[in-house]
Amino acid sequence: MSYATRKLSEEKVFKDPVHRYVHVRDQVIWDLIGTKEFQRLRRIKQLGTTFLTFHGAEHSRFSHSLGVYEIVRRIVDDVFKGRKEWDESNRLLALCSALLHDLGHGPFSHSFEKVFQFDHEYFTQAIILGDTDVNRILLAVGEEFPKKVAEVIAKTSEHKVVVSLISSQIDADRMDYLQRDAYYTGVSYGHFDMERILRLMRPWEDQVVIKQSGMHAVEDYIMSRYQMYWQVYFHPVTRSGEVILNKILQRAKELYEHHYEFKYEPKHFYSLFQGNLTLEDHLNLDEAVVLYYFQVWQAEEDAILRDLCHRFLHRNLFKYIEFDPSNEYNKYVRLLTLFKQANINPKYYLVLDSSSDLPYDFYRPGEEEERLPIHLLMPSGELHELSRESEIVEAISGKRRTDHKLYFPMDIVKEKIMDESTKREIFDLLHLC
Amino acid sequence: MSYATRKLSEEKVFKDPVHRYVHVRDQVIWDLIGTKEFQRLRRIKQLGTTFLTFHGAEHSRFSHSLGVYEIVRRIVDDVFKGRKEWDESNRLLALCSALLHDLGHGPFSHSFEKVFQFDHEYFTQAIILGDTDVNRILLAVGEEFPKKVAEVIAKTSEHKVVVSLISSQIDADRMDYLQRDAYYTGVSYGHFDMERILRLMRPWEDQVVIKQSGMHAVEDYIMSRYQMYWQVYFHPVTRSGEVILNKILQRAKELYEHHYEFKYEPKHFYSLFQGNLTLEDHLNLDEAVVLYYFQVWQAEEDAILRDLCHRFLHRNLFKYIEFDPSNEYNKYVRLLTLFKQANINPKYYLVLDSSSDLPYDFYRPGEEEERLPIHLLMPSGELHELSRESEIVEAISGKRRTDHKLYFPMDIVKEKIMDESTKREIFDLLHLC
Amino acid sequence: MSYATRKLSEEKVFKDPVHRYVHVRDQVIWDLIGTKEFQRLRRIKQLGTTFLTFHGAEHSRFSHSLGVYEIVRRIVDDVFKGRKEWDESNRLLALCSALLHDLGHGPFSHSFEKVFQFDHEYFTQAIILGDTDVNRILLAVGEEFPKKVAEVIAKTSEHKVVVSLISSQIDADRMDYLQRDAYYTGVSYGHFDMERILRLMRPWEDQVVIKQSGMHAVEDYIMSRYQMYWQVYFHPVTRSGEVILNKILQRAKELYEHHYEFKYEPKHFYSLFQGNLTLEDHLNLDEAVVLYYFQVWQAEEDAILRDLCHRFLHRNLFKYIEFDPSNEYNKYVRLLTLFKQANINPKYYLVLDSSSDLPYDFYRPGEEEERLPIHLLMPSGELHELSRESEIVEAISGKRRTDHKLYFPMDIVKEKIMDESTKREIFDLLHLC
Amino acid sequence: MSYATRKLSEEKVFKDPVHRYVHVRDQVIWDLIGTKEFQRLRRIKQLGTTFLTFHGAEHSRFSHSLGVYEIVRRIVDDVFKGRKEWDESNRLLALCSALLHDLGHGPFSHSFEKVFQFDHEYFTQAIILGDTDVNRILLAVGEEFPKKVAEVIAKTSEHKVVVSLISSQIDADRMDYLQRDAYYTGVSYGHFDMERILRLMRPWEDQVVIKQSGMHAVEDYIMSRYQMYWQVYFHPVTRSGEVILNKILQRAKELYEHHYEFKYEPKHFYSLFQGNLTLEDHLNLDEAVVLYYFQVWQAEEDAILRDLCHRFLHRNLFKYIEFDPSNEYNKYVRLLTLFKQANINPKYYLVLDSSSDLPYDFYRPGEEEERLPIHLLMPSGELHELSRESEIVEAISGKRRTDHKLYFPMDIVKEKIMDESTKREIFDLLHLC
Repeated sequence: MSYATRKLSEEKVFKDPVHRYVHVRDQVIWDLIGTKEFQRLRRIKQLGTTFLTFHGAEHSRFSHSLGVYEIVRRIVDDVFKGRKEWDESNRLLALCSALLHDLGHGPFSHSFEKVFQFDHEYFTQAIILGDTDVNRILLAVGEEFPKKVAEVIAKTSEHKVVVSLISSQIDADRMDYLQRDAYYTGVSYGHFDMERILRLMRPWEDQVVIKQSGMHAVEDYIMSRYQMYWQVYFHPVTRSGEVILNKILQRAKELYEHHYEFKYEPKHFYSLFQGNLTLEDHLNLDEAVVLYYFQVWQAEEDAILRDLCHRFLHRNLFKYIEFDPSNEYNKYVRLLTLFKQANINPKYYLVLDSSSDLPYDFYRPGEEEERLPIHLLMPSGELHELSRESEIVEAISGKRRTDHKLYFPMDIVKEKIMDESTKREIFDLLHLC
Repeated sequence: MSYATRKLSEEKVFKDPVHRYVHVRDQVIWDLIGTKEFQRLRRIKQLGTTFLTFHGAEHSRFSHSLGVYEIVRRIVDDVFKGRKEWDESNRLLALCSALLHDLGHGPFSHSFEKVFQFDHEYFTQAIILGDTDVNRILLAVGEEFPKKVAEVIAKTSEHKVVVSLISSQIDADRMDYLQRDAYYTGVSYGHFDMERILRLMRPWEDQVVIKQSGMHAVEDYIMSRYQMYWQVYFHPVTRSGEVILNKILQRAKELYEHHYEFKYEPKHFYSLFQGNLTLEDHLNLDEAVVLYYFQVWQAEEDAILRDLCHRFLHRNLFKYIEFDPSNEYNKYVRLLTLFKQANINPKYYLVLDSSSDLPYDFYRPGEEEERLPIHLLMPSGELHELSRESEIVEAISGKRRTDHKLYFPMDIVKEKIMDESTKREIFDLLHLC
Repeated sequence: MSYATRKLSEEKVFKDPVHRYVHVRDQVIWDLIGTKEFQRLRRIKQLGTTFLTFHGAEHSRFSHSLGVYEIVRRIVDDVFKGRKEWDESNRLLALCSALLHDLGHGPFSHSFEKVFQFDHEYFTQAIILGDTDVNRILLAVGEEFPKKVAEVIAKTSEHKVVVSLISSQIDADRMDYLQRDAYYTGVSYGHFDMERILRLMRPWEDQVVIKQSGMHAVEDYIMSRYQMYWQVYFHPVTRSGEVILNKILQRAKELYEHHYEFKYEPKHFYSLFQGNLTLEDHLNLDEAVVLYYFQVWQAEEDAILRDLCHRFLHRNLFKYIEFDPSNEYNKYVRLLTLFKQANINPKYYLVLDSSSDLPYDFYRPGEEEERLPIHLLMPSGELHELSRESEIVEAISGKRRTDHKLYFPMDIVKEKIMDESTKREIFDLLHLC
Repeated sequence: MSYATRKLSEEKVFKDPVHRYVHVRDQVIWDLIGTKEFQRLRRIKQLGTTFLTFHGAEHSRFSHSLGVYEIVRRIVDDVFKGRKEWDESNRLLALCSALLHDLGHGPFSHSFEKVFQFDHEYFTQAIILGDTDVNRILLAVGEEFPKKVAEVIAKTSEHKVVVSLISSQIDADRMDYLQRDAYYTGVSYGHFDMERILRLMRPWEDQVVIKQSGMHAVEDYIMSRYQMYWQVYFHPVTRSGEVILNKILQRAKELYEHHYEFKYEPKHFYSLFQGNLTLEDHLNLDEAVVLYYFQVWQAEEDAILRDLCHRFLHRNLFKYIEFDPSNEYNKYVRLLTLFKQANINPKYYLVLDSSSDLPYDFYRPGEEEERLPIHLLMPSGELHELSRESEIVEAISGKRRTDHKLYFPMDIVKEKIMDESTKREIFDLLHLC
């Protein structure tokens, strides 16, 4: 029997709070889970700084990755198997792509990617195609197999049904994270009838569609997603944590560029600061390492770095006010000036942050971020785009919602010694009293 | 209004997956949660190495501490309040003790305490009584207040009802962790009707008792505890992780004592290695720091340290066989010899580990670990010890159960080059093939 | 102590799957639950014929009534108590009104009310104000008390905050039934964060409002309601059961009016058939009695009555097709003719049924069914109508959705002997093959 | 394709709160569910009078029967399929036996069977083998098929593995009812990891065994069973309802035997009263019919019948005291005399009731009720009886527990006019005051 089809002598299971059990029968999957690149995901939180708002949200990308794999496994083994539109030879490709789709994530992904302008997807590709244990296992399946997996994750694969299992507007990735993040945060949102959706998924030419009788379950999923975005993912306190994290990284980089002498040399960060993060350095940069540096940087000379690290570790976050960038830009500019006058560096201590989401959209050709729509398979055999059938989805379809906040350290603003009129004006603009 | 009785202008809540919400109304509690010593508990996992077996078990002592506080809050505010046996002036003492009872835990508590022979309870006392933010807040309540909290946690307090809320055979600590650990691991055990138990708890002279109509809920709690110990806490894979952790620490200490030159100086560990861990060093030693060292130690010269760190981080654990110390001691001695012959250091690679639990016990005066029994308050007004009323509890009462395993690295044993007869004998004794 | 304020010597609890426990401390409430008029609600299903679609939905109005009481109890005792906008003297009025609000429901309420054109609200009033055990208990509270309870339930009370607790667009009634019906049917809809909504409810002049920070929980509640209506309450199979039930009652009444001689005299139905249902007869008419008659009517001479009863008891329901009344009216008229030609009585065997719902609406003065809007209490102290703040609610606000179906007995149509062309035309119009 | 192997063109599902979905693919199963004999189970409550204690327990044997079928379906299709010890030709036999195992239950089964001394198992056989729709469907599978199904349910079948799926100490019947009854009552007991047990079940010669790694899940199941028996099934209030029910039936029978003239002739009961209940009458006797009679009997001349029916319908139950038959028999005899003196008929108003359960037992040859033990399949391939491996199970194994209570109507005893000394003695013996 070839390695690609080798089964474990006995099925292995992982106890999972969301899916009850994650089942592994394939030797390839078992081996991939055991690699150091995959085990590293245990040291990357699934939700970044959300734990600062929802203390339960301490789960890792490791758990999530197993969950996505399990959902895809159920679809291909319990629903698609034997259907003529489904190419059974793509089974292992789907399973591996599901398992590995988040492999390139770094610590606190969004912040790192934003400040250092790199993309976790680049590193996912690099790990799958580079000199890694993951690559060696995939190669043992077939010479072209690593490339095929990489293409599915990059959405450039010709196996479009497989791509749409992993990344579309209703994919295994989203179905896992909505439920998992709801479970760990403890919020009431995030529940929908996944079992029904899975049962009604069908491979259909170049996409996965859902039988029309599952429309209400899909509506519920879209609404869950909407609520999770605004109640959890974009929570203003979580964003305050992210703002501080960004500013720590920005400050450290700035100091490095100005040849500041760190008491504790940030060796792990060198290639990152230099803008040429290597694969090896990337794999070594997990959240434990980052938190270690934040701890030791609390004893640095630089007051800003010290303060920001202290804030992050001990959850002394920035406060915020609502901000309307279209009408209040002058106010922001004025605050910049006032902060400078008060000797509070606005680059680090006055931060505009915006969150924005498009809950669902149909295909709008030519637009920036083209999204493939969700299609319902009607009893007649036709495909109808979801928002054409669902009033609720139509109501929110294509409507981008954005939220702007202005963050600042209340304690510093209040305690800083500055002249009275500056203080009064700052207080006034920030609605303090 | 004094600081002790000051209320927040608006109640604060934490969303909690186990108790739905944790409610905070007291300024003192809010301030304690904000201290850096309490926030540090976010970086200490509640279940040490259990995440290596149950991937969901990534929750921290921070969550658990909030949970214990919430349970005690419900008892004192919803059940005890207004009862003549309850001294309302002990309310804040109970809340603070509940919140802070785990404050001294270090990273991977059991392993550190075992290898370096210190006690987290010592550090809990030290944090409460020493030069810390927590101490300053407690002092603001009253000059004697830190001492009173410390005494409750040390079980030496004269306020015995408060002590038994926090540490007895059915206390808020256990009720929280059984449910919380069950929730995060996803196992089916760990459920019992806490709401009923709370409703039927009564302060009674020097202890908390439970009305007899709650007996079955208490039985269920005892059974949950039993199952959680054997299914989760003593899981052999978790213990394999702990064994490796112990051995890393032991090896590092040994190297330090032999003046080994670490590439990366383990500054955070110095006072620990020297046997005089300071409070400051203790507070700095969180799991992120420990994992940072494990990562960098993977590049050390010392092959054993390198190997063990690699195993821990990438979950390449030791295998195990059942071991009966009363009958198989000769076998163990023989294996020690054989390992040496094969050039595998048995001090680090052949480890006996035992777990042992006493699910419930009544009071046996004079015995080593005296346990206060659970008392039922009968309709007649008498107290009856639980095992006298419950057949199931009687059946397991006082029965210590112990499990012994022998751990070793299967891959090294298999791959190591040694002479054929040694190998055959080792394989035979370890049931390998 | 007066009867109105008398407490039970010990709190009583009912184990409830939805709210965990229902707590009773007031003697009045305990006595009301024990009346025969309230106990009778155990023999009225909460969801009529829904059990024919969702077999779990066998729960009674008794459970639901306890649930509504419990929600109101939590609001007034845990949230409103002590607020200056809340008149504590209305507490018992609120509790009693909540408990008794559904008291007048008859068996399979909708069908009976439709066919015999009476209103369960009339009988709720009659039970509260008439010669009943419930009335005697309420009278013992105060001479005017029965009238005050009746007015709250009739929404004519001057105590508008109490009215809005029991009947508004976000009241205890709806919050209980959405969750309860979801629990018993097992569907994934119907979940929302009730605890948060309760915590953020405030009495405010003449209504109950919700603090703005609870907006998303309210959105979720509105969406739950929407999904429950279309997935559960208006399920086409449930409606098929209702159609048959209606037709049984209509047939029995028609036979009675034509002096048909029933083998088993329908004594329980006489005053109902005569259009002057007495309170006594109403109280005796529970679902057990109705099902008894349906069983014995299976042996009646009249073929239609016999057949319909058989269908209802053994779930041999009508099939349905979609029907668009604006475009297909001619088709319906044609089918009437064809059914007559085929000797199938269309009055009983060809039934148009429409369901219609308005998920949420703000106040539209002058319109038929004026609805009081849900108001959010903004941080500024202003009230904002919900759909002004919530995009999702705005999207569905005021949009009535209607569904039309045409029901018929597939087996009769298929098996009936009729001339070939009639059959062919009927088959064609009903999409049979 | 033969009828036995015919599949539905599309799988049908029932939404089930306990198992999420019940899946039906076989035409035979679908047809059986549609028979009037099976639909009748909707009018038989699963838990008899338990709804008087736990108001949520209003579910029917219909739901339970679907649940047992679903569990067996999962075992045979997902776990046993393809194993060489499993005879795939027994699949339909297992499914039909599971679905139909409770078919013969009458209304409030225990009471009816006790008073009229018949056995629901007799009627299950009669329905399967007699002139019924169920029989006709089973016959269409094969001439011998009804008999084979009947034998499995009667435990006389040669297909012992199939028998042990449906009735053993760990069978699909018990696994469904423990979970279902827990769900509907809302109690915290009744949960165990069924998914794990199912996954580890194996056909093994003439029984179903469980792999040793599932031992703790089985322990948990045994404990759940124990708690459900004592907390739910034997609840003293539920038994009070049963006592009254028994007494109603006993009284009605006695009246019938003494040629009492019922205002409403109990035609449905005639053959029952005469001791020759026919299959037709049995099928007509559902709980709706029984409750109808109870209602009309409230207007009977006979004071005892009237009173008892009123009590049952309006939940005016008997009170109880603990009773120790070995020591207090004289007390009971004395009370009989006193009740007669006081003109309270002790036959109906002074009732001893005992409940008794054996939570688990291994095989004790020659004893009255031989029980087949649960066997664990050890890694070595041997079978070990459960209590040999599990300390907890050993502790309760073979220990019969019995509870005795003495029931009486408190209100009658208190209000009845009798001479003072009799009253005093009765009050004293019944612990009244």
